[in-house]
Amino acid sequence: MSEFLFFHPNLEFKSITLPEEESKHLIKVLRKAKGEQIRIMDGQGNLALAIIRNDHPKKCELEIISIEAQVSARNYRLRLAIAPTKNNDRMEWMLEKCIEIGLDELYFIETKNSERSRLNLERLEKIAISALKQSKQFKLPILGEIQKLDSFFKLQQTWNCERFIAWVETEKNEGLLKHLQSNLNSPADILVLIGPEGDFTPDEVQLAIENHFKPVSLGRTILRTETAAIQSASWVSAFYNS
Amino acid sequence: MSEFLFFHPNLEFKSITLPEEESKHLIKVLRKAKGEQIRIMDGQGNLALAIIRNDHPKKCELEIISIEAQVSARNYRLRLAIAPTKNNDRMEWMLEKCIEIGLDELYFIETKNSERSRLNLERLEKIAISALKQSKQFKLPILGEIQKLDSFFKLQQTWNCERFIAWVETEKNEGLLKHLQSNLNSPADILVLIGPEGDFTPDEVQLAIENHFKPVSLGRTILRTETAAIQSASWVSAFYNS
Repeated sequence: MSEFLFFHPNLEFKSITLPEEESKHLIKVLRKAKGEQIRIMDGQGNLALAIIRNDHPKKCELEIISIEAQVSARNYRLRLAIAPTKNNDRMEWMLEKCIEIGLDELYFIETKNSERSRLNLERLEKIAISALKQSKQFKLPILGEIQKLDSFFKLQQTWNCERFIAWVETEKNEGLLKHLQSNLNSPADILVLIGPEGDFTPDEVQLAIENHFKPVSLGRTILRTETAAIQSASWVSAFYNS
Repeated sequence: MSEFLFFHPNLEFKSITLPEEESKHLIKVLRKAKGEQIRIMDGQGNLALAIIRNDHPKKCELEIISIEAQVSARNYRLRLAIAPTKNNDRMEWMLEKCIEIGLDELYFIETKNSERSRLNLERLEKIAISALKQSKQFKLPILGEIQKLDSFFKLQQTWNCERFIAWVETEKNEGLLKHLQSNLNSPADILVLIGPEGDFTPDEVQLAIENHFKPVSLGRTILRTETAAIQSASWVSAFYNS
């Protein structure tokens, strides 16, 4: 059976048709044929075994044989909210790396110093699916449409999570990892807010603090926006994995 | 004074000439002129204040006014040894991110399953200098020419450091961070060996163990080679920064 993992958003039906790109990859690139078995995931934590019933290179038909539950769910939930960088590549790399390391929800925020207010979420979702397959995980992170910081603050109010804000002026603050380590009652649900290259304004930081975000440091060096996101994912994974 | 940092490998002389690219950036892009002051670093930990004496756009002449010591040296030393990925971009991103987070020495190794045995070190050095400037650090990491794993094992024998090997079959192993935390006598000098996408062979792992490398895990997910390097840098930085 191919080690390669396929994607279809809905595995509830007994019979499904793969989208064109996935069909092409399966039949043309991997040269699989009718009767062969593959693994497929729905991005919601389900992994299924399927058999190729019609090896059409554009609309390959599969029959779902059995659904296997997600094998190893993470023991924590990480949500990041980030002001996207001007350079799109940096966001794409960040998403790929954060998914490999462990990420559940990613929100894009528009702040005063933001350099970008539009995003191609469809492309980001493709990257997310590919990173998921690559790292053998089965749950697609939520990708939120870009929204103003105000509206994000409203959205997150009902979440039962520990909130942190990382921004450049935080060298004096306690490190994110240290904070997690010194709070035994930390819920395993973490939200980290990351500013743009031009940083949050003092007003935005104040607003975050009023919304129960704790200022934390991500180390002594100056990190680019996307590196701050990766560092957050990595430090949180270090805490919950060790 | 420009916030931008310039680079010249030798600040010992009172008068220096910037290389063509740096000259062009200073005079043509930033439009600095004779008499203006800039900051310049040598990549060895020295930061100097300099004045433009001749604003030639290809060979700008500077006079060094004063040398300031490196302000905030790291409290640990991190050395990574990695089997380069097939895709060069991934190595370049990894280098940029690791430098931002904190990296002192990077060695490239050729293993049985390596996908690349040649590297453009000159280009990597340019990326390193740029990442250094961006993150306001002043010490250029050592970048080692690609070498066979055997010869790397010989090279590192005299180093006084804690040695780790991270490879895919290490899920059962203790996490790198946990290992650092449970060893109070760990020296602040860490070497992490990272394998290729195809992983180390059992023989290579055995050789590493004979060379006093401890097998450690970098978490429960499957990381790409470059992500394993970033995760290592990030976890080590989390430990020494908190």
